[in-house]
Amino acid sequence: MALDLKPLINPDSVAIIGASPNEAGHAGRCLANLERTGYPGRIYPVNPKYDRIGAHTCYPSARDLPEQVDAAYLLVPARAVESALEDCLERGIRTVTICSAGYAELGAEGAERQRRLVERARERGVRILGPNCIGVLNPVDTYVGCPTFNITYSYTPGSIALLSQSGGMAAALFNRAQGRTIGIRTMVSLGNEADIQMGELLDAFVADPQTRVIAIYIEQLRDAERFAAAAERARAAGKPIVLLKVGGSEAGRRTVLGHTGAMAGEQAVFSSMMRHLGVVEVHSIDDLLNTAYALSSLPLPAGPRLGALSPSGGECGYIADRASAHGLEIPLPTQQTLDELSEKLKLARPGNPLDTTGQVIGDGALLSELMQIFTADPNLDMITLSIPTWGPYDSNALLPRIIDAVKACDKPAVLSAWTARNLTERAEELLRESGICWFASSDEAIAALANLRRYAELAQAPSATPPEPVSLPRPEVTELNEYAAKRLLAEGGVPVVAETLAPDTEAALRAARDIDGPLVVKLVASGVTHKSELGLVRLLDRADEAEAALADLARVAEKENLTVEGYLVAERLSGTEIILGAVRDETFGPVLMVGAGGILAEHFADRVFLPCPAAPEHVRAALKQLAVYPVLDGARGRHHDVDALVDVAVALSRVFAGSPWMTEIDLNPVIVGLKGQGATAVDAVIGIAPQA
Amino acid sequence: MALDLKPLINPDSVAIIGASPNEAGHAGRCLANLERTGYPGRIYPVNPKYDRIGAHTCYPSARDLPEQVDAAYLLVPARAVESALEDCLERGIRTVTICSAGYAELGAEGAERQRRLVERARERGVRILGPNCIGVLNPVDTYVGCPTFNITYSYTPGSIALLSQSGGMAAALFNRAQGRTIGIRTMVSLGNEADIQMGELLDAFVADPQTRVIAIYIEQLRDAERFAAAAERARAAGKPIVLLKVGGSEAGRRTVLGHTGAMAGEQAVFSSMMRHLGVVEVHSIDDLLNTAYALSSLPLPAGPRLGALSPSGGECGYIADRASAHGLEIPLPTQQTLDELSEKLKLARPGNPLDTTGQVIGDGALLSELMQIFTADPNLDMITLSIPTWGPYDSNALLPRIIDAVKACDKPAVLSAWTARNLTERAEELLRESGICWFASSDEAIAALANLRRYAELAQAPSATPPEPVSLPRPEVTELNEYAAKRLLAEGGVPVVAETLAPDTEAALRAARDIDGPLVVKLVASGVTHKSELGLVRLLDRADEAEAALADLARVAEKENLTVEGYLVAERLSGTEIILGAVRDETFGPVLMVGAGGILAEHFADRVFLPCPAAPEHVRAALKQLAVYPVLDGARGRHHDVDALVDVAVALSRVFAGSPWMTEIDLNPVIVGLKGQGATAVDAVIGIAPQA
Repeated sequence: MALDLKPLINPDSVAIIGASPNEAGHAGRCLANLERTGYPGRIYPVNPKYDRIGAHTCYPSARDLPEQVDAAYLLVPARAVESALEDCLERGIRTVTICSAGYAELGAEGAERQRRLVERARERGVRILGPNCIGVLNPVDTYVGCPTFNITYSYTPGSIALLSQSGGMAAALFNRAQGRTIGIRTMVSLGNEADIQMGELLDAFVADPQTRVIAIYIEQLRDAERFAAAAERARAAGKPIVLLKVGGSEAGRRTVLGHTGAMAGEQAVFSSMMRHLGVVEVHSIDDLLNTAYALSSLPLPAGPRLGALSPSGGECGYIADRASAHGLEIPLPTQQTLDELSEKLKLARPGNPLDTTGQVIGDGALLSELMQIFTADPNLDMITLSIPTWGPYDSNALLPRIIDAVKACDKPAVLSAWTARNLTERAEELLRESGICWFASSDEAIAALANLRRYAELAQAPSATPPEPVSLPRPEVTELNEYAAKRLLAEGGVPVVAETLAPDTEAALRAARDIDGPLVVKLVASGVTHKSELGLVRLLDRADEAEAALADLARVAEKENLTVEGYLVAERLSGTEIILGAVRDETFGPVLMVGAGGILAEHFADRVFLPCPAAPEHVRAALKQLAVYPVLDGARGRHHDVDALVDVAVALSRVFAGSPWMTEIDLNPVIVGLKGQGATAVDAVIGIAPQA
Repeated sequence: MALDLKPLINPDSVAIIGASPNEAGHAGRCLANLERTGYPGRIYPVNPKYDRIGAHTCYPSARDLPEQVDAAYLLVPARAVESALEDCLERGIRTVTICSAGYAELGAEGAERQRRLVERARERGVRILGPNCIGVLNPVDTYVGCPTFNITYSYTPGSIALLSQSGGMAAALFNRAQGRTIGIRTMVSLGNEADIQMGELLDAFVADPQTRVIAIYIEQLRDAERFAAAAERARAAGKPIVLLKVGGSEAGRRTVLGHTGAMAGEQAVFSSMMRHLGVVEVHSIDDLLNTAYALSSLPLPAGPRLGALSPSGGECGYIADRASAHGLEIPLPTQQTLDELSEKLKLARPGNPLDTTGQVIGDGALLSELMQIFTADPNLDMITLSIPTWGPYDSNALLPRIIDAVKACDKPAVLSAWTARNLTERAEELLRESGICWFASSDEAIAALANLRRYAELAQAPSATPPEPVSLPRPEVTELNEYAAKRLLAEGGVPVVAETLAPDTEAALRAARDIDGPLVVKLVASGVTHKSELGLVRLLDRADEAEAALADLARVAEKENLTVEGYLVAERLSGTEIILGAVRDETFGPVLMVGAGGILAEHFADRVFLPCPAAPEHVRAALKQLAVYPVLDGARGRHHDVDALVDVAVALSRVFAGSPWMTEIDLNPVIVGLKGQGATAVDAVIGIAPQA
């Protein structure tokens, strides 16, 4: 059953449980907000202490309400919530927003009380928002139920849905957006998500015809599967999602834990999954708003090529640097464009960024001509026009020209105007009135355009059907040694190195003598997974070194008191080291990891995750995101067998998805040879879950 | 002769050459600015067209001025500059600011005219600022000579000197600072730097008692040696320098070239040198201002440990993430502090960041108590107190408490208050009046505190005397092969691998048979420096592989038609690969490069530069900046011979500094063994400059 957004964000009637005539207090603010913003529906205050509040009849209990209202706001303290909710359920109220704090965010006992509330509501088919939230703020339909002191009252309706678990950040985001005249469809604060969770709400806003973009502030994703499905629908509908997740740092996780009882998953997995789902992840509040703003008001660029124009040469250099840092290209315009510009420019050579110089300051017509020629250049996919801190004189004289140029441009085009309080008031006024997409610094403009481009790329990501899982039988033992792990994976279709497990050094020596070329001998011992650290792996150049090496391994085993399970002997493969692995993420379930191998690359934490099982197209795209990818394919003219590596990763992901008894798989390393030479796992660890 | 700042930035008298009564035009604005800001000195307009301008007598020529004025502003077009300057020189004016454009920024012919201007001025001992600049803006001494429309007229004097080559960015920086109530000592726009250059001006402001911090916006550093000396004096005087350089990107360099005729040096060298000089480099306009602001108004933190407090739990998580991303630590407070906080907090568990929850909203006394306990915690080196978008009610009720807590704190403490135009007007007013260090978002606060910490570290960098250069004789040849290069470097004290240069394959084979263990054979051919790409380097596991390998090399030589100079035979060393090199940077002269070796690390561009000759302490500090450093020292429990590596680098830097005929040295790789095993260059290239 899909969430019905209407009674939640645009109810025909609303009951305020615990309403108060004191507008300065939390309980009075909700009613005051609804009234001052002109809520067109029916309002019912509920509080046994009052007969009337303002112009409204006040009801002693929700049971006494004269109709089955769409929405109720619960503003009573936590101890009174349970009975107030029963009253609401009894009267058939459709959605209940519980603002009260004091639930799961405080620990197990609060979580239990929270669980009971939801259980009761679900029995009656009633949906709950919260607890521990500030509810809904909908400027499009003038429904502002939000019980907070600190929200702006001059609204700019728009097409950006703003979804936040934190109420404080929801208000800050809303206010900052409105302060910038960024139009908001609706803000919803989800709080502890006892019932309505992010994925379900996202799905509802994807379906909402008045929503073009969804901006999300999240601490923990609780319904990842539903979220993923909603994100896929958003991508199909062409509705971008921009998301900021906190809790990535250790201290952040500590805070999130305290704050909403959330246990944040690993940040790297989260970021990979967002990318995989076509979600634009950002890392700052202003980036979240500015990106949503750009996505809601601009077409998508056809490519990464930015054209920048400014009357300040200094700013031109600055923009070029910022754009490069964000991965945008700043190509030269065509020769024809350069020639046309040259004819007009006295004090500068035309280029990109285009420095129009002070020559345009007294000459608006020239500025218009230059902008027209420049923005039409076929080498440019998107445009930013930038001005310095202009006072009223230049703003009045020239800014309307630039605004017109932005409006006339059929590519994504923005204007950046450095602001400086009083000095730039007139410029800001003109820009707010213009309705164009503008930013208060070129940093913000560039960051937003870069994210616009990022979304355009994500929206075109290859679609692919994941392969079927491959189920491997759970072994009878509680621990698999390296040899056994590789044999099992080989059964599941994962290419592993050919090797011999010899019971003793004599047998190992015989196996070694069969190998012509470099070889490796390893001691396999019970309970030892990190063999390198104990010196149990010996890389040899030739077989006649094996005798000494094996004797040495046997000595180490004796000294360390190891239970020897055998000696592994194998050919030593040459190629580039890649790590493949799989783990069960607490948020996203089974995920595949691809990463650069070797001590240096591990140090750089160069890795990308995908859901298991993974399609070959997605594995290939993930590999291309690795910093190490050029080393695999193209650096120093060398091309490795990427196809074979993709096959190993896909096979690994299928086995892991189909074998729930595995807690993790670690293939470290997989040796990737040059094209045609294949990719082979030379070490393997499989974690086994305890029997249930 | 040190630059005398007084006549330039605080003249007793000023002549405006080319003055006009039209305040709306460029030529009229300078006089208007001086008058409206109450310049206390004597003003002399000069223009043969007028007898008077406003209340002032207007003089036909600078020659007719009634006194030797301190400063002249030249506002005449480029074609009239030369004769106007002659008039100024004739009358003995001490400093001349040439605002006119049309010089070196346009190319060679303009550069020549610019050179002649300076030549004339130097003959008479007169200093020139510009051309192509907007001059000086000094709110401390109310001297605003600046001829631009777009500057704010409500000034906040302060202790930050703002030096910018670009006039447009100088004005934007000044305005944006003043809009934020960030106090400015003086803004100077240097333009083309025909005479007064950045280093000299920096030196003068370091000596200026009213300057505490210097913020620099630069496109090209023209007097690096002087700049370095000034930066050293600034560090000694405890005056931080914050710097933003543009032109790092390819497109940025293109723009900078067009803009002021500057040829920007390599960004990586520049960044390393700034760090070496104790300069805090930043990459955005707002970071430049905010960092200078923090440095001018806060004590330095004793360590990297940040304490953060907010009444919004969502914000707490956000701050923790941002702080971690900036390398700050967020430790837990002491148990005593936690206990004291626990007693006061009902709805939250105390931690860091400290979420005071909405409990404090109605209770200012509680908020004050919590802040006092928290900020005094001995685990915290600096403090940020953050509030959401507060409207007037909460601002009036609570903000004064928070301001008082910031003021009372003896550690560096800042306040961040998200702004949202009209809603937060009262909060901003209270904050501006407070005089405390505050920011309009927690992102900005964290970034500024992180840079404050960065400066505190840079200020404590080890001081060391560089060693003497070592001079090596220029060879008679125009090209040194690998063997000769290594022999020469060995003479200069650089540890290189022991090897044999055999004239033919037979001799090479004999040399190979003397080596017990892995070995390397290389073919040395005239004009071939990148041997690996031609397959001329063979890594062998044992001597009996040498015969086949040498025969193969000989075949390649024949096929590629190479002039064989011999076969190099050497023991193959094992260890971690590091690249050392040296080049002559166009800005900084001879610089040493230390970097991670191997294809992966080259790909990550992990490298740091130092001036040559380099002291061991500085080489060691540079190595520690490498991302790869933990691999050298400590990762997987392995400790390499870093001391030996430092010795190689120091020796290399001495040789390069002492041998001006070398254009570059490339030791790729240096093999660094484990502790006690040394570090050895196994390949070497020396570039030889053409004979003068």
